[in-house]
Amino acid sequence: MLSKDMVQLGSRRSTIREIFEFGRKRAAIVGRDKVYDFSLGNPNVPSPDSVKNAILDILDHEKSTAVHGYTSAQGDDNVRDVITRSINKKFDTNFTKDNLYMTVGAAASISICFKALTNPGDEFITFAPFFPEYKCFVEQGSGGKLVVVPADTENFQVNFLEFKKRINKRTKAVIVNSPNNPSGAVYSEDTILKLVSILEAKSKEYGHAIYLISDEPYREIVYSGVEVPYITKYYKNTFVCYSYSKSLSLPGERIGYIVVPSEMDNFKDTYAAVCGAGRILGYVNAPSLFQKVVAKCVGQTSDISIYETNKNLLYKGLIEMGYRCVEPQGAFYLFPQSLESDANLFCEKARKYDLLMVPGDDFGCPGHVRISYCVETQQIINALPVFKKLAEEYKK
Amino acid sequence: MLSKDMVQLGSRRSTIREIFEFGRKRAAIVGRDKVYDFSLGNPNVPSPDSVKNAILDILDHEKSTAVHGYTSAQGDDNVRDVITRSINKKFDTNFTKDNLYMTVGAAASISICFKALTNPGDEFITFAPFFPEYKCFVEQGSGGKLVVVPADTENFQVNFLEFKKRINKRTKAVIVNSPNNPSGAVYSEDTILKLVSILEAKSKEYGHAIYLISDEPYREIVYSGVEVPYITKYYKNTFVCYSYSKSLSLPGERIGYIVVPSEMDNFKDTYAAVCGAGRILGYVNAPSLFQKVVAKCVGQTSDISIYETNKNLLYKGLIEMGYRCVEPQGAFYLFPQSLESDANLFCEKARKYDLLMVPGDDFGCPGHVRISYCVETQQIINALPVFKKLAEEYKK
Repeated sequence: MLSKDMVQLGSRRSTIREIFEFGRKRAAIVGRDKVYDFSLGNPNVPSPDSVKNAILDILDHEKSTAVHGYTSAQGDDNVRDVITRSINKKFDTNFTKDNLYMTVGAAASISICFKALTNPGDEFITFAPFFPEYKCFVEQGSGGKLVVVPADTENFQVNFLEFKKRINKRTKAVIVNSPNNPSGAVYSEDTILKLVSILEAKSKEYGHAIYLISDEPYREIVYSGVEVPYITKYYKNTFVCYSYSKSLSLPGERIGYIVVPSEMDNFKDTYAAVCGAGRILGYVNAPSLFQKVVAKCVGQTSDISIYETNKNLLYKGLIEMGYRCVEPQGAFYLFPQSLESDANLFCEKARKYDLLMVPGDDFGCPGHVRISYCVETQQIINALPVFKKLAEEYKK
Repeated sequence: MLSKDMVQLGSRRSTIREIFEFGRKRAAIVGRDKVYDFSLGNPNVPSPDSVKNAILDILDHEKSTAVHGYTSAQGDDNVRDVITRSINKKFDTNFTKDNLYMTVGAAASISICFKALTNPGDEFITFAPFFPEYKCFVEQGSGGKLVVVPADTENFQVNFLEFKKRINKRTKAVIVNSPNNPSGAVYSEDTILKLVSILEAKSKEYGHAIYLISDEPYREIVYSGVEVPYITKYYKNTFVCYSYSKSLSLPGERIGYIVVPSEMDNFKDTYAAVCGAGRILGYVNAPSLFQKVVAKCVGQTSDISIYETNKNLLYKGLIEMGYRCVEPQGAFYLFPQSLESDANLFCEKARKYDLLMVPGDDFGCPGHVRISYCVETQQIINALPVFKKLAEEYKK
């Protein structure tokens, strides 16, 4: 009688949430500092002071009805103006506010794109390892089909051979996530150029656009000066899906945006479809106070240097112990190989030490585990001997 | 290539938004005080000071990562606890936090219920006049069908004769909205009892629950001590969909909740389906700061007495001029008959005086117009002579 899909989706928590709940329970028993929870991608770095200052400033100087009232569905005019100017300055683009649509966070940004594009039978391609919610949003959310290209586990760039086998005339869009959750890879300009050349050739061959959906909430979190190419400059039919969850440590506030470039095929209809999808999904408008807050904090980030400290400490530590891992270039995840072929069994063994990691299977990449290092640095220091014990167990 | 439905929905703004945009343009030409815009349901009353104080208090006393971090998908534990205690005290109910699911506002509350319940072929019944977005959410959003029962224009209670003709074995749920947008009617206890007795008989006859979805963002905005029955006390299979948009004047912040009573058939699965629907629709969690804010402001409202002042002024004024109108018992809308049978033509005529109202056709109730009186009282005083001129034009 109820929607079976919804009951099932709601009953089976995501693996990540389940591990996190286990960690909470264990912390209550053995103490928080004895549980090494690396399961959740919840930023541990506080928002910059400018966020609090922006809120205070807005509350002091603007009328309550202006701060908390409805904005237009696509977002406050001034907010969109400020944000697009900042994008243009940073990436040498030419957007106006009419290319921007404010959203209720990253999940909303990508859900809206899927809903705007999908007709029955459409396929969306993504590259493992990938964010597991893509599957729900594409399939139960929009009625499309998610097609997964197996990982290139050498470097977590794109496995083009497998990609070419899967692209076909039903392919509506390709979803990329760089810096990547969970691998930490940043797609190089070379990867983007190869991808774009295939998309252009195939769009021509099939006589319709194949869109690129760039899911980039980790854009600012990159290491050693790595550059994250701005994809609209390479491919006109690109949606940029952004969120302030990670850059300003505001994941609970649900605030982000979609960029729809004017050069895109059928721009006017495409932007209208984005508006239609936002309406149908019941978003109404992105939270109004935080629209104004992110505009006031434009170009700023939390102190993301902590993530690089954590990454270096953890990466070097694990490599020294014999773990095999591609060094992350961004985001706040390490994605090493598990020490036995079944990552689920490996994670279970780790759990006995109250060391919590997420098996790569959910990300379409078995034999690996995700370690979220958006945690206190001290937790990593405390956890290293535990990782060592775990490795030694496998050497026996 | 794009989703046709989405392009169409995004291209055709809602009638209401279109009228509002016309008003903005006219205000720029003739001055804001010369445009009598009664089109939008955007509360003009500021939030109570307690909202600002709550924000300041939270920012001063809680860690940034706790304030702005993810909450669990169903909402912060403490917030849900505080809110359910307040509901219990007010309505003599017995809910716990496990009966509450925090949402991204009223549109999310009802969209989640539709998505949680709908299987292909399901019908949802509502009573005219009704909020036009119901149709989008039920049909394009969830794949169900919205069935509309014509209005009882005598008093805007339920037209039971027409309801009985439409209820059938495909009926999954009935949506009620009391206090009503746009009629201002409050369903009496008698109406609720009759409705419930039909639902109980038909659920039994068809061998499956017919749910009641109570969309009640206007619950607190009622006049002359009218009571709004709390529907879970009359019918166990009721979802209560609430939003703080109107009571605390926070429509832009997108914060509300759903109550799922434990007595409901298959409670555990139903709550799971609500969680599944929230997940699929990409909501992740209700905005975190405002979850805490509404918990701190629990039981409070904006100064809603202004709406009663406005209602009295406008209602009496229009009746004296010969307009025919059912006196509203709640919400902030007046829904008089238009002075010619085609409400669209009537509204066009009114537009020439820069008097902006919304034709009832969109609400499934032709021959009426919606006047939103959530405006400065002065606007009503200024508009009365204009309403008079308009009426006189029809007397010629």
